[in-house]
Amino acid sequence: METFKVYILGCGSALPTLKHNPSAQVVDIRGKLMMVDCGEGTQAQLRRMKLNFNKLTSVFISHFHGDHCFGVIGMISTFRLLGRTAPLHIYAHKAFGPILKAQTGFFCSDLDYDVVFHEVDTKSQKIIYEDRSMTVESIPLSHRIPCCGYLFKEKPTLPHIRRDMMDFYNIPISQFNNIKNGADWTDSEGNVIPNSKLTYPADQPRSYAYCSDTQFIPDLFERLKGITLLYHEATYSDADKDKAEAYCHTTASQAARVAQEAGVGRLLLGHYSARYEDETILLDEAKAIFPQTYLCREGLCIEV
Amino acid sequence: METFKVYILGCGSALPTLKHNPSAQVVDIRGKLMMVDCGEGTQAQLRRMKLNFNKLTSVFISHFHGDHCFGVIGMISTFRLLGRTAPLHIYAHKAFGPILKAQTGFFCSDLDYDVVFHEVDTKSQKIIYEDRSMTVESIPLSHRIPCCGYLFKEKPTLPHIRRDMMDFYNIPISQFNNIKNGADWTDSEGNVIPNSKLTYPADQPRSYAYCSDTQFIPDLFERLKGITLLYHEATYSDADKDKAEAYCHTTASQAARVAQEAGVGRLLLGHYSARYEDETILLDEAKAIFPQTYLCREGLCIEV
Repeated sequence: METFKVYILGCGSALPTLKHNPSAQVVDIRGKLMMVDCGEGTQAQLRRMKLNFNKLTSVFISHFHGDHCFGVIGMISTFRLLGRTAPLHIYAHKAFGPILKAQTGFFCSDLDYDVVFHEVDTKSQKIIYEDRSMTVESIPLSHRIPCCGYLFKEKPTLPHIRRDMMDFYNIPISQFNNIKNGADWTDSEGNVIPNSKLTYPADQPRSYAYCSDTQFIPDLFERLKGITLLYHEATYSDADKDKAEAYCHTTASQAARVAQEAGVGRLLLGHYSARYEDETILLDEAKAIFPQTYLCREGLCIEV
Repeated sequence: METFKVYILGCGSALPTLKHNPSAQVVDIRGKLMMVDCGEGTQAQLRRMKLNFNKLTSVFISHFHGDHCFGVIGMISTFRLLGRTAPLHIYAHKAFGPILKAQTGFFCSDLDYDVVFHEVDTKSQKIIYEDRSMTVESIPLSHRIPCCGYLFKEKPTLPHIRRDMMDFYNIPISQFNNIKNGADWTDSEGNVIPNSKLTYPADQPRSYAYCSDTQFIPDLFERLKGITLLYHEATYSDADKDKAEAYCHTTASQAARVAQEAGVGRLLLGHYSARYEDETILLDEAKAIFPQTYLCREGLCIEV
């Protein structure tokens, strides 16, 4: 299977602590690195986790609260020092464009590579990036300022050729592509071998959704049906539900409800409030509703 | 003696490493904390070193290369979350004012405390801050962009009253202040006791100078005559003198020359290039010229 991993660089919330870095993740999809959110200190985390700076193609910012984007300018500046030439694509709400431009203009006026800004409509679910093998979609969320999540989805792939069958029927290599694309095979005696006998089914396309920051959205699950791995913010425990409502955040059990109703494979919790010494309380509350729940921590790498 | 300490929060240079944080120091003078430079991640270092956020009154920025100022906006934002009400004073070259305003306006529009910007003329040595007990002066430096160092100086204090002599001559408390200010004492028999017998000499005023970033300035020592503790950048070793010249930085032995010619008490080296696995080479080169040289490292606290 092709690489599809998520690295957790930071899973704390607004108030920085020594235990957690602010929000930042890297999605490694077939060796291409895409970052989601980039709080202060993210470049140090990239280094700590030995992720290759040159393979980072893009940064997707959920919203412009500082704990999700203060690390962008430092990273842009460091990439310049390291002699980057490839463009860096930044995806965010349009309001982020002018301040990004002001910062790069002032602090990195002599950039040798392009920082390409892409406006994201945070209010609609739309494909905002696409290549041969995958797409990235925006997912509207509901926070105190415009905010969206991001859905990383593999495209469906073709079935796998069964080498044993190719040998058995003496099928020439020139025909492999037709068979991958669904063709049957007629042997020299005129027997038709159905495609299903010649191939193994294609890999199930995998998907990863990042949903942070947001208040609980009762029908969010409809956008997340059947995804492989869901990261959903779980800033508070049930006991602090009033705070979750006041600050437009989610409790762990609300996050679990989203996962359960969407029927996702696994749920990852993060964006913990600094008030919890031990996040096991969040894990326990979520697991009571959705057992396949896991806690993020800095340094974690999860296969999607 | 009153408190006068320097905390090293970061002593790396432009290229971030896992070994060193970018430039940041805190000067604690009589319990008042003043920061000099503030690279990315400085607020985490403040926390790590258990420095009281509320006692930080001001930030002095040497110049607006990112490794000296990217941490300012995150710190301003965190202080807001923590409910700060006291103003925070930022001292820097005037060019830093508009970008600071743009950043705080965008990221922290609802600040409950004032961020007061003070323009510093980096080309002249001038008192830019003064209170009852100390002054801060700018020190012109020479870098690729406008840059200055900062000199923290205690004001001269009055001599100490000798309690034993007060008792011996039965001098009433009402006269102590006159004696601190230099008065002699005439006893009941008409004998004049000279002030020098009634007091211990005042403490020697202490001073701390921060000089970074700068190329070697042959006559800089004249501005630093007799200061107690000097921090001078020492980005490169002698072997990389050409790089020091190309990037307007200083070698360790050049820093030592400044210290020696100024006759300072002790020299602190920092702003190490990422190329040195072990900074002992810098220490050795400097000590050959000025033996009272020490290396900065993160977490260090030095009494001035």
